[in-house]
Amino acid sequence: MFKATVIVKRRPTILDPQGKAVEQGARLLGFNNVRNTRIGKYIEFFVDTNNRADAEKEVNEYCTKLLANPVIEDFEYNLEEVSDD
Amino acid sequence: MFKATVIVKRRPTILDPQGKAVEQGARLLGFNNVRNTRIGKYIEFFVDTNNRADAEKEVNEYCTKLLANPVIEDFEYNLEEVSDD
Repeated sequence: MFKATVIVKRRPTILDPQGKAVEQGARLLGFNNVRNTRIGKYIEFFVDTNNRADAEKEVNEYCTKLLANPVIEDFEYNLEEVSDD
Repeated sequence: MFKATVIVKRRPTILDPQGKAVEQGARLLGFNNVRNTRIGKYIEFFVDTNNRADAEKEVNEYCTKLLANPVIEDFEYNLEEVSDD
């Protein structure tokens, strides 16, 4: 079994209105040192296989087809072997 | 200047309907080994100060007051010093 953690972020050239809105809120609350907030997704899940190559293939496809929008987002992932329970 | 990366996740005991929905999609697409998908947020921003203690305080408050809902979510962050540009 593998535990996968995935980070999906908008490409640097793509505007992030959500981050911008949150940062405006930050200004209103008096956080004056915060700059360039960008908000992405953090996803974790388990892959039920003991073969790392299979797990990587599945994670890659899962990211490309469902978790990230490949047109505007990039993803990176980490796979860590965990004991089955 | 510091670069902060924050991960916000729902507490393990809190249901994650978004993760559940995505995982149902995964089943329909034929990903049969994916288990227990949970979706959180990944946030990155810069803190414009050269004092680590100040930066930590600001990040902590920003997380507690805006980025995370402390009732149902936990957050963790990482601060990395970067050169001003």
